[in-house]
Amino acid sequence: MSDLGVTVKKSENLSEWYTQVVLKSGLADYAPIKGCMVYRELSYAIWEKIQQILNEKIKRTGHKNVYFPLLIPESFLRKEAEHFSGFVPEVAWVTIGGEKPLEEKLAIRPTSETIIYAMYAKWIRSWRDLPIKLNQWCSVVRWETKATKLFLRTREFLWQEGHTAHATKEEADEEVMEILNEYKDLMENYLAIPVLIGRKSDSEKFAGAVYTTTLEAIMPDGKALQMGTSHNLGQNFSKVFDIKFIGKDEKEHYVWQTSWGISTRVIGAMVMVHGDDRGLVIPPRVAPIQVVVIPIPYKDTSTEVIMNKAKEVYERLQSAGISTHLDDRREYTPGWKFNDWELKGVPIRAEIGPRDVKHGQVTLARRDTLEKIIVKDEEVVEVVKKLLEDIQNNMFNRAKRFLEEMITTVKNYDEFKAVLKNKGGFIRASWCLSPECERKIKEETGATIRLIPFEKEEPISNCIYCGKEAKEMVYFARSY
Amino acid sequence: MSDLGVTVKKSENLSEWYTQVVLKSGLADYAPIKGCMVYRELSYAIWEKIQQILNEKIKRTGHKNVYFPLLIPESFLRKEAEHFSGFVPEVAWVTIGGEKPLEEKLAIRPTSETIIYAMYAKWIRSWRDLPIKLNQWCSVVRWETKATKLFLRTREFLWQEGHTAHATKEEADEEVMEILNEYKDLMENYLAIPVLIGRKSDSEKFAGAVYTTTLEAIMPDGKALQMGTSHNLGQNFSKVFDIKFIGKDEKEHYVWQTSWGISTRVIGAMVMVHGDDRGLVIPPRVAPIQVVVIPIPYKDTSTEVIMNKAKEVYERLQSAGISTHLDDRREYTPGWKFNDWELKGVPIRAEIGPRDVKHGQVTLARRDTLEKIIVKDEEVVEVVKKLLEDIQNNMFNRAKRFLEEMITTVKNYDEFKAVLKNKGGFIRASWCLSPECERKIKEETGATIRLIPFEKEEPISNCIYCGKEAKEMVYFARSY
Repeated sequence: MSDLGVTVKKSENLSEWYTQVVLKSGLADYAPIKGCMVYRELSYAIWEKIQQILNEKIKRTGHKNVYFPLLIPESFLRKEAEHFSGFVPEVAWVTIGGEKPLEEKLAIRPTSETIIYAMYAKWIRSWRDLPIKLNQWCSVVRWETKATKLFLRTREFLWQEGHTAHATKEEADEEVMEILNEYKDLMENYLAIPVLIGRKSDSEKFAGAVYTTTLEAIMPDGKALQMGTSHNLGQNFSKVFDIKFIGKDEKEHYVWQTSWGISTRVIGAMVMVHGDDRGLVIPPRVAPIQVVVIPIPYKDTSTEVIMNKAKEVYERLQSAGISTHLDDRREYTPGWKFNDWELKGVPIRAEIGPRDVKHGQVTLARRDTLEKIIVKDEEVVEVVKKLLEDIQNNMFNRAKRFLEEMITTVKNYDEFKAVLKNKGGFIRASWCLSPECERKIKEETGATIRLIPFEKEEPISNCIYCGKEAKEMVYFARSY
Repeated sequence: MSDLGVTVKKSENLSEWYTQVVLKSGLADYAPIKGCMVYRELSYAIWEKIQQILNEKIKRTGHKNVYFPLLIPESFLRKEAEHFSGFVPEVAWVTIGGEKPLEEKLAIRPTSETIIYAMYAKWIRSWRDLPIKLNQWCSVVRWETKATKLFLRTREFLWQEGHTAHATKEEADEEVMEILNEYKDLMENYLAIPVLIGRKSDSEKFAGAVYTTTLEAIMPDGKALQMGTSHNLGQNFSKVFDIKFIGKDEKEHYVWQTSWGISTRVIGAMVMVHGDDRGLVIPPRVAPIQVVVIPIPYKDTSTEVIMNKAKEVYERLQSAGISTHLDDRREYTPGWKFNDWELKGVPIRAEIGPRDVKHGQVTLARRDTLEKIIVKDEEVVEVVKKLLEDIQNNMFNRAKRFLEEMITTVKNYDEFKAVLKNKGGFIRASWCLSPECERKIKEETGATIRLIPFEKEEPISNCIYCGKEAKEMVYFARSY
C-alpha cells in the first residue's frame, strides 16, 4: 500500500495531496459502497486516542456513556418540524425487515435527538432525576450527494453525540460552554489545531437548536473547517416530546436541553493542517506510535549487535511509557522504512546504525522539522520525552501563526471579495444581522458566517453588504 | 427508576425476574422501536470494561481495531451461497437514500465478512501482507421475529467481530483456538461464568464456515447460552471474493480465514448466572463501581463527622485503585440506598454510621453472600482488596459447581427425554454423526447439539436416536 510516496506537493494541489496521503499512509480507504469509507488501523487508533481523551473529560464532568438504537421511526423525526426539514433530505430509510415491508419507515440515525428524547420523556419525573448527562459513540448516516472526501464528507461517519437535560436554562447554558471548552482543549492541546470559537448565525445553526456554538479551524487552502458544535436546544424538543419534571416548587416544568458532537472529520483536519510533502505528521499526544526504532545493519558491524541495541532502546522507551515500535523486519531496507514511517507520520524516528553502536549513541529524527539529533544512550528517554513535548508545541505554534495570518479585517464588500479571491481565510467584517445580507453574500461569493464572537467586537464600518448600520463584527469564510 | 425492588423470586419465575432486574437496576430499557433496546449507563459501563479487557488481549496478540461500513450491497451477501441463505431472512434493507430509491438494496450489516473481505481482496498481494488480523466493535442488526429478550434477543445488538487472513491452514487453525482461549479467560476469570468449549456440529455451525468452535454456559433454568464463537472459514470466502497472495514460492494461493465474535448477550448471561432476589450481583472485575460508601447519619452523632469519615474512606479506597462511589445524596435514606445499590449489584457496600465513627471502623457488606464484616479503619484498603478477590472467586466457584451438577450422561433416548424434562442442563449422549438423528432429536425435544468436545470422549452406547454405532459423545441442551 505504501510502496510509493506522495507524488504531488501539498502547496501545488492540496486536494490530490490530501487523498494520496490518506490512502498511501494507510489511514483509510474508499469502501466499495458509494460515499462510504473504511477506517483502517491507523485512523482508528487515532480515533481511540481521541475517545480516551474525551471520555476522560466528559466522565470527569459527570457524563455517562450509553447506546441508543440505530433506527428511528419517521414519526419521531417529524415531531420537531425544523429538525425534520433539516435532516430529511439526507436520510437513509429502512423499508424492509426480514423479507417483509415495514409498516413505518425507519431512518438510520442522522443524529439521535429524537430517539433519545423519547426515552428522556419516560425516565424524567422529578427534579431528582436531573440533570441527565449522556453521551454515545456511534456512527451516523447522512446521504450526501456531493463528492466524497475521506473523513470530511462521507455518507457514514463516526462521531460522539452528547445529550443533556437540565432543570434550568442557566444550567443548559453552562453545559454548552463547558463542553465547548473541553472540545477546544482537545483540538488545541492534543490535535495541535488552533480554533476560533463563537456562535453560529440563525441560518447556520443546528436544525432544532435555540443557538449553536462552534469551533472553527483554518485549512492550508484558506477554507474553514467546523471542528465541533455544542447546541443549546432550549425547550424546543422537551415541548414536542413532552419531557417534564416536577420541580422543587412542586410544579411541572419542561426541561432545558443541550446536544453536542465531534466527528472523525477532526482526523481529516489533522492531516491537512500538519501534513507535508512526505506525508502525515501526527501530533505526539494522539500518535498511536510516538517513536519508531529502526536498526540499520551495515557491512562492518554484526547485524546481531545492531539488532540487540535496537531492541534495548525500544524496551527502554516503551517501559518509560513512550509508545514505541521496533521495525525489525528483514524484508525491507532501512531507506524503505524511513520513507514508510515518514508517510505514516510517526513523530520521532530512532536510528541505530554502526556509528551509533560504536559511540554509545542514538540518532533521533524529528518528523515535524526533519532535523536530526544525536543523543547519548543514557539520555535517550529524557531527550525523547522533551522532544515529544517540543514537537507538540512546535506543531501547535506553527498552526497558530498560520491561523493568525489568515484572519483579515475588511471595511467594505470590494475588499471582502478581493481577500476571498486572493487569500481566503477568515474575513472579519461588519454585519447588520439581516439574514438577507448573509444569504446574498453566500450566493455571490460562497462565503458563510462561520461564527459570531462571544465577546462582541465593535463594528468598524456599516454592514458590508447593505451599508446600513452594523451590529456585529463576524467571521466569514468559505468552508469544507 | 429503582423505586421498587424486584417483586418475583428468581427460583419461581426466572423470565419475569430477569426482565425486572434488567429494567429496575437501570441496566437497560426497551426502546420505542419494536425489538430494540437502550443500553443505559450501567450496562454500557460493563460493556466498556469488557472492551478494555478484550482489547488488551487482542492487541497483545497482534490484532488491530478498525471500522468498516454499516451498509452492505445485496450482491456482496449473495456471493457466498451458504452465508447468504443463513442471513438473508433476518436482514433489514435500506432501499431509499436521501429521498431517492437506491439502485441496489443495501443490508444493514448482520455480520461483516463480505464487506471486509471485499477489501482484503484489494489489500492483499503478497505473503508480506499476511497475516491480516483486524477487529471491529460495532452494532449489528438481525430482524428477529421471536419475542424480544433484553441482551439475549434484540434486533440490534453490540458486539465485536474479528476477521483474519492467513497464508496457511495451520495458522488459521491456531488463530481460531487462540481467540477461543482468550474468550474463555474473559468469561471465566472476569465475568465469573464457567463455560464448556468445543466444536459445533455441521448443522449448527456459522453460515459459511468450515467449522465453528463455541463457548457454552448454563443458565439457572437449565438452558444453555452460547457465549461466543470462533470460526475457521477455510477458503470459502477467499475463493468467492478472490483473495489471493503470491507466496514465498512465487505462486498464487487463496488465503485461509477466521472470524469470531462475542456480543452484549454475555451481559444477559451475567445477570442470569449471578443475580439473586435482591437484583444484580456484578463480578468485581467487571463492576463499574466496586465499592459504594454510604454514610448513615444518626441522631447522637453529628452529620458532619459521619460525612467527613465517609469521604475519607471513599478517598482512601479510590486512591488505592478501587473503583469507589460515595453516595452522599441527602434526599434519600440510607435504607433506600442499601436497596438501590443491592439492586444495582455493587460488590461491596461500606457503611459509615455512629458506631463506626466511635470505634474507628468501617462496616462492609458483601453483595454475593450478604455477609457483614467489621474492619478497622487502617485495614480497610487491604481487606477490601482481598474481599473483592474472594467475591470474584466465590461467584465463579458457585457457578462452576452448578455447571458441573448440570451435566448428565445418558445411555438412551428415554433417559435423554427424562433428564431434559425433569432437570435440563447439558446432556452427554452418544451420537452417530448423522444430521438426520440430530434433526429428529431437535424436532422432538427442542434440544440441539451445543458442542462436540475437542478431546474425543468415547461413546458409552450406540447412537441414542437411531441405535446404530456412535462416533462421538456430544453435549445436547435446550438453549436461548
